[in-house]
Amino acid sequence: MSGFTHFDQKGNAAMVDVSAKAATVRIATARAQVVMQPATLAMIREGSATKGDVLGVARIAGIMAAKRTAELIPLCHPLPISAVTVDLEAEGSGVEIIATVCTTGQTGVEMEALTAASVAALTVYDMCKAVDRSMRIEALRVTHKEGGKSGTFTQD
Amino acid sequence: MSGFTHFDQKGNAAMVDVSAKAATVRIATARAQVVMQPATLAMIREGSATKGDVLGVARIAGIMAAKRTAELIPLCHPLPISAVTVDLEAEGSGVEIIATVCTTGQTGVEMEALTAASVAALTVYDMCKAVDRSMRIEALRVTHKEGGKSGTFTQD
Amino acid sequence: MSGFTHFDQKGNAAMVDVSAKAATVRIATARAQVVMQPATLAMIREGSATKGDVLGVARIAGIMAAKRTAELIPLCHPLPISAVTVDLEAEGSGVEIIATVCTTGQTGVEMEALTAASVAALTVYDMCKAVDRSMRIEALRVTHKEGGKSGTFTQD
Amino acid sequence: MSGFTHFDQKGNAAMVDVSAKAATVRIATARAQVVMQPATLAMIREGSATKGDVLGVARIAGIMAAKRTAELIPLCHPLPISAVTVDLEAEGSGVEIIATVCTTGQTGVEMEALTAASVAALTVYDMCKAVDRSMRIEALRVTHKEGGKSGTFTQD
Amino acid sequence: MSGFTHFDQKGNAAMVDVSAKAATVRIATARAQVVMQPATLAMIREGSATKGDVLGVARIAGIMAAKRTAELIPLCHPLPISAVTVDLEAEGSGVEIIATVCTTGQTGVEMEALTAASVAALTVYDMCKAVDRSMRIEALRVTHKEGGKSGTFTQD
Amino acid sequence: MSGFTHFDQKGNAAMVDVSAKAATVRIATARAQVVMQPATLAMIREGSATKGDVLGVARIAGIMAAKRTAELIPLCHPLPISAVTVDLEAEGSGVEIIATVCTTGQTGVEMEALTAASVAALTVYDMCKAVDRSMRIEALRVTHKEGGKSGTFTQD
Repeated sequence: MSGFTHFDQKGNAAMVDVSAKAATVRIATARAQVVMQPATLAMIREGSATKGDVLGVARIAGIMAAKRTAELIPLCHPLPISAVTVDLEAEGSGVEIIATVCTTGQTGVEMEALTAASVAALTVYDMCKAVDRSMRIEALRVTHKEGGKSGTFTQD
Repeated sequence: MSGFTHFDQKGNAAMVDVSAKAATVRIATARAQVVMQPATLAMIREGSATKGDVLGVARIAGIMAAKRTAELIPLCHPLPISAVTVDLEAEGSGVEIIATVCTTGQTGVEMEALTAASVAALTVYDMCKAVDRSMRIEALRVTHKEGGKSGTFTQD
Repeated sequence: MSGFTHFDQKGNAAMVDVSAKAATVRIATARAQVVMQPATLAMIREGSATKGDVLGVARIAGIMAAKRTAELIPLCHPLPISAVTVDLEAEGSGVEIIATVCTTGQTGVEMEALTAASVAALTVYDMCKAVDRSMRIEALRVTHKEGGKSGTFTQD
Repeated sequence: MSGFTHFDQKGNAAMVDVSAKAATVRIATARAQVVMQPATLAMIREGSATKGDVLGVARIAGIMAAKRTAELIPLCHPLPISAVTVDLEAEGSGVEIIATVCTTGQTGVEMEALTAASVAALTVYDMCKAVDRSMRIEALRVTHKEGGKSGTFTQD
Repeated sequence: MSGFTHFDQKGNAAMVDVSAKAATVRIATARAQVVMQPATLAMIREGSATKGDVLGVARIAGIMAAKRTAELIPLCHPLPISAVTVDLEAEGSGVEIIATVCTTGQTGVEMEALTAASVAALTVYDMCKAVDRSMRIEALRVTHKEGGKSGTFTQD
Repeated sequence: MSGFTHFDQKGNAAMVDVSAKAATVRIATARAQVVMQPATLAMIREGSATKGDVLGVARIAGIMAAKRTAELIPLCHPLPISAVTVDLEAEGSGVEIIATVCTTGQTGVEMEALTAASVAALTVYDMCKAVDRSMRIEALRVTHKEGGKSGTFTQD
């Protein structure tokens, strides 16, 4: 078979066995951007400053989604998440999202961070779609990861 | 307040009342791309042809996620989904994802299509991350929408 | 057997058959109060005005919980909720919560309104418990209900 | 910012980091009362003795809800619950509910105990609402808590 | 492709489109048996008569599971369930389970009835496994189905 | 009371306290068979070899269901699952299913293995029911269990 770890020798999908791995502190950060029209961005900024807090709602959605990652991603292990932060900034050409998740567990939390960023971005889309249907979610990726055997990883 | 529909006059978030809207057939299509290294893409292609079907697992994850959209997106209405398809093609610089959702309901299914495409993309990431941590999910957007008062919308 | 509708002749619990009932517009409002120390209430008020929006987070939790009522309450029917609002006011001796839910369906939405108010109240408790462990959730009840065969009901 | 622990310096909600806290045995007990008309209470008592066991159904609902606390309360940590009991007694002016939850974890289980008591109370309401719409859920509060840095807390 | 309806022409799994089907009343009944040692069965019987009601807990689990069928079975449509009954009898060589589900919808409820019977059976297993690990769940099947284009089906 | 462990002295259901038990490696294997007509089995075999992979979809459904066992089975403890495999073979008179689950926890994973096998079997049923409504799920049982105080158990 290929080098993928989520398949056994016969090519069947499986949740890989992590029982022999040490439970260590692991952190991952994911980022994404919701690109939108300048007028939409201005409306979000105004709402955050006064009323109609799009970013506040999206932050809660992202945090809650991190906890449900293992329900959504078929071969993901359930993990005891110990911290989640989701930052959203209305800047440049849209909303910049940074999600960080921490656990003391046997596998990493990249998927939890990506899921938090993804659902926060989708929530921004949902709340703004009546005024701007052309929004796009771009550049969802892991920017930092530490803990576990594979060590620290950082990219822009 | 701003022009957002998900806030009341005081700026408080709310699930907007759709009880006066007609239940009509509504369709939405969303697309996304998982950009990856050529070697990763080659591994996916090989697996789909023989063993270790990354795209088959991601398809199921996307279909199942569409059904849980209202649990993830705070102000989304629960909808009786009548059809979901998720197509994944390994081509160009990565995996191209097209998700289409259909309902007979009082609101549109853009969020369901976006959620299906998003979770399918995250599942591709999860299954390939051991060999390629630099993957990025790009250009998640609605490309087609029809049904409901706002009529048909299409973008590339 | 007793006059309870959720048991059959043998006394076994069952989800009662509503298939012969008309799908009509139904509305229910539930209220509750989180009683707390004056200093805690002052902190919530200050946060809502500037930063640290306890009531905004609780509102989202209540709205999302309304959609999951049928998962939590064993004999509750799943319903296509068409609107949810959750108002929270810091006033008097604590936080006053008013949740209103609307559907076009075959059964009423009292349980959805009560669940929304209840989870909003629990979320207020969660966010304030580090500063005030003596909080109490009081007077969770249905204050208004309309639609369906049993007609309109109102109480204080 | 205020003294609330669920917000960062900018006032944004976050799931606080508990990764540095020791995993110790923690117990919490919550109580609530469903106040109802004497005739309703008599019907429940009769059912429990013979057929139509309202309290038995509510007990199961409360136990199951404890396990889903982290899905309902936005900033709550998922915890490996090691025991749940929910006692319901038909006495005095209604049904008295006592829920106790135990874990070996990094944070306390007050929210789990409160959620179990709350959903058990809502289930009593659901099963009796056809005969008594005036029921009220009163005095939902934590009565005991032990384990963790903050020590033992008891109130009536 | 083969005659399976859950795959498109390319062999990819999909949730089939039911939007053109009429919403009619549909009923399905499923049955299963938990075969066990006579001593285990005697214990269940005794508990049902007095205290420790295994069958009552399993009934609630089955009813609640019916409502979650579409979350568990990947290509199943979400349906507005209008009634669920789960009967369990301790008789012969074990516990006989009969689950009946009703909807007014565009597809049948066989999967909901099977899921209810299956989870009720698993709950019996869970509650008795400390005294009898040799239990087996046998003969889980649809025994009756009516409504929809394919008409009435009955088997033993 | 009877010898069942899921009831207290009064006969009330409870989630038993496992906080004093050691967290050790525990493994369980469950099996089941979906008995079907020879023509149905031939169609599944053909699909797996080329297109329309019934067994691949059922495998994913079984793995995902294992993670949700504690949500479905009322008195089951949530467990940090460290591995899941679900094997499905089209052979003899139907599809043979073998599910194995592993954890490092305070209770065993029999229920997780049984739930995985059960939902995989139900998914096979769902995907084939349009061509064969007479299928039956037979012989769902635990065939192996190790770890924990009660030691190793094996049956056919």
